[in-house]
Amino acid sequence: MRRVAIIGAGMTAFGEHWEQGFRDLVVEAGIRAITDAGISGDRIDAGFIGTMASGRLVGQEHIGGLLADYIGLNPIPITRVEGACASGGLALRQGVMAVASGMHDLVVVGGVEKMTDLGVNTVSDILGGAGDQEWELFLGATFPAIYALMARRHMQDYGTTEEMMAAVAVKNHKNGAKNKYAQFQNEITLETVMKSKMVADPLKIFDCSPITDGAAGVVLAPMDMAQSFVKKPIEIIACAQASDTIALHSRESLTSLKATRVAAKKAYDMAKLTPKDIDVAEVHDCFTIAELMAIEDLGFFPKGQGGKATVEGKTAIGAEIPINTSGGLKACGHPVGATGIKQAVECTWQLRGEAEGRQVKDAHIALSHNVGGSGATAVIHIYRNQ
Amino acid sequence: MRRVAIIGAGMTAFGEHWEQGFRDLVVEAGIRAITDAGISGDRIDAGFIGTMASGRLVGQEHIGGLLADYIGLNPIPITRVEGACASGGLALRQGVMAVASGMHDLVVVGGVEKMTDLGVNTVSDILGGAGDQEWELFLGATFPAIYALMARRHMQDYGTTEEMMAAVAVKNHKNGAKNKYAQFQNEITLETVMKSKMVADPLKIFDCSPITDGAAGVVLAPMDMAQSFVKKPIEIIACAQASDTIALHSRESLTSLKATRVAAKKAYDMAKLTPKDIDVAEVHDCFTIAELMAIEDLGFFPKGQGGKATVEGKTAIGAEIPINTSGGLKACGHPVGATGIKQAVECTWQLRGEAEGRQVKDAHIALSHNVGGSGATAVIHIYRNQ
Repeated sequence: MRRVAIIGAGMTAFGEHWEQGFRDLVVEAGIRAITDAGISGDRIDAGFIGTMASGRLVGQEHIGGLLADYIGLNPIPITRVEGACASGGLALRQGVMAVASGMHDLVVVGGVEKMTDLGVNTVSDILGGAGDQEWELFLGATFPAIYALMARRHMQDYGTTEEMMAAVAVKNHKNGAKNKYAQFQNEITLETVMKSKMVADPLKIFDCSPITDGAAGVVLAPMDMAQSFVKKPIEIIACAQASDTIALHSRESLTSLKATRVAAKKAYDMAKLTPKDIDVAEVHDCFTIAELMAIEDLGFFPKGQGGKATVEGKTAIGAEIPINTSGGLKACGHPVGATGIKQAVECTWQLRGEAEGRQVKDAHIALSHNVGGSGATAVIHIYRNQ
Repeated sequence: MRRVAIIGAGMTAFGEHWEQGFRDLVVEAGIRAITDAGISGDRIDAGFIGTMASGRLVGQEHIGGLLADYIGLNPIPITRVEGACASGGLALRQGVMAVASGMHDLVVVGGVEKMTDLGVNTVSDILGGAGDQEWELFLGATFPAIYALMARRHMQDYGTTEEMMAAVAVKNHKNGAKNKYAQFQNEITLETVMKSKMVADPLKIFDCSPITDGAAGVVLAPMDMAQSFVKKPIEIIACAQASDTIALHSRESLTSLKATRVAAKKAYDMAKLTPKDIDVAEVHDCFTIAELMAIEDLGFFPKGQGGKATVEGKTAIGAEIPINTSGGLKACGHPVGATGIKQAVECTWQLRGEAEGRQVKDAHIALSHNVGGSGATAVIHIYRNQ
């Protein structure tokens, strides 16, 4: 396999973009990524785009063909990849394969979702399609309800408290406040989270990531070509994906995602690294409990200790392992298909030393962790600067 | 790149499967493909699944995670790929990349669509998402209307007649009558087509492929491992994809698909072959006019001569270049995401000499051509037996 590097990264602001359509968002992110790579579009050989539910959200499928057209790159091949909230991470993985295989050299990979044009109940129903439609959503289990079950069990088994979960939101808002692309750029207090409206007990509105419009993009190149384009190519040194049952009730555990653990083991093996080697990580905090499970499943903290570690500040910028410097899904926002690519963009910026105001000092190795649904898909990438 | 071969192929019957759900269809096809390869499921490293509109048709996204679970293969990675009616062909291409790159060895690739649970108008609206939702579908241009525009122009520019288009349907029904997996296993006469109900002038109901439930699957392996599993591995010697504008009105031509021509050139170059070397081909006949354009764009006949060649029987089994021996989309049926994989299955059977009742004698090289929407995506594979 050829070694693969990121040579360009860009994104739209995440938020409510009522003045921009689905297409506009991708074009903006795509052009920023390509411009950042210092190349013109006609150098691009192929593309991949992650989006979860464009069919139901904007009535449009055939997203690869649409974008090849709107980004002005036809007749190059562009392919849409879908894996619910992991759609972006999976698109990145297909891009890596395309370059690694030698089938393509310069590949643009994007992620997008346009979610705010519909009412919140409709969107919630559509997002339910990321779980088991027949055995969960049909019976009323929306995503806050599913993650609330995990939270309850985590509280029972490990003594995790609502305050520990709330600490994730406080930390991610603090990071988001330093990110000009974030949907929420305001700090919040623990009290704000604890007093906020209950969505699915014990998860309150501030435990939940928001509904967001946005897009993000990166440009990939073979490592041996990368340095001819940019001074600081960011190599993708591991790329691993795993699956689990689609429904929560079939899982071995409610407090740990097997897909994350399996993908993490593969990724660490591939990169010949351990969790201790990671300097900064973007993890999938669709709900605060998801971040606690992630930092445990990724091996940053022992099982059940994620909450305590967060309260102790070990996941803050400047501490042991800074988590979600972008603000995470919680504060940066969660335009579903874009999230996995935004994570790659943030890792790229951190490893280039360009994460203004939230830079992790001497960051050398970064990790991104993107989850689909309640954990039936997890995809992990590890990045290294030179 | 490593060389890649098909070592297993299988499919469900195509038709109206009111007694089987989306999941059941994929499991059936997947198990048939894996069984055909003579391996057990635990040998499979990864999977790809093509489906266009599961979100709108059955309320379910996150298809990779769902299928890893239902086919009993979790925690392996399975990824959904979408490219409208080319979803299956694109999934196959991702499978080829996964094996070619060395990232995976044994990969299962499937395609599926469950379409008959909704009314025809709803399905027609959903399929319209394969075109330009904002500038075509929203204004009333469903797919029969879009292809009718191409047909009219082809008639004007090249003297193609309604009878010539009807001859495609007659030939494909004749082939489908010999395929036990086909939705329509009955021969029809030219008169049947000509007297059938007008859908979008000049396209009549018998010029249109039907709405279908079904799934198909293949198992891929590196060529150097393939012979340890099966006696007759079918090598994929070319794999090419291209794009064009999403909307018909932006095209350079209404009578030729640029995406097909670009992908065909790449595929022939990759395989070091010319159209004359192809012994049998499955082409994308979503409408009869689409088959005429395809056999011209693929270089089997000069531009404008597809209709005449069909009437003269040059595309029949036993003639110059047998086209759509499976019955094509027209008679075998068109479960959108499954079509591209069904084409690969038919090519495999033809090259193994297993296409009972419709076998092309001495078939050595086969080609499959899968189109998304009205041509914004085209993906072509060329296969060779040993």
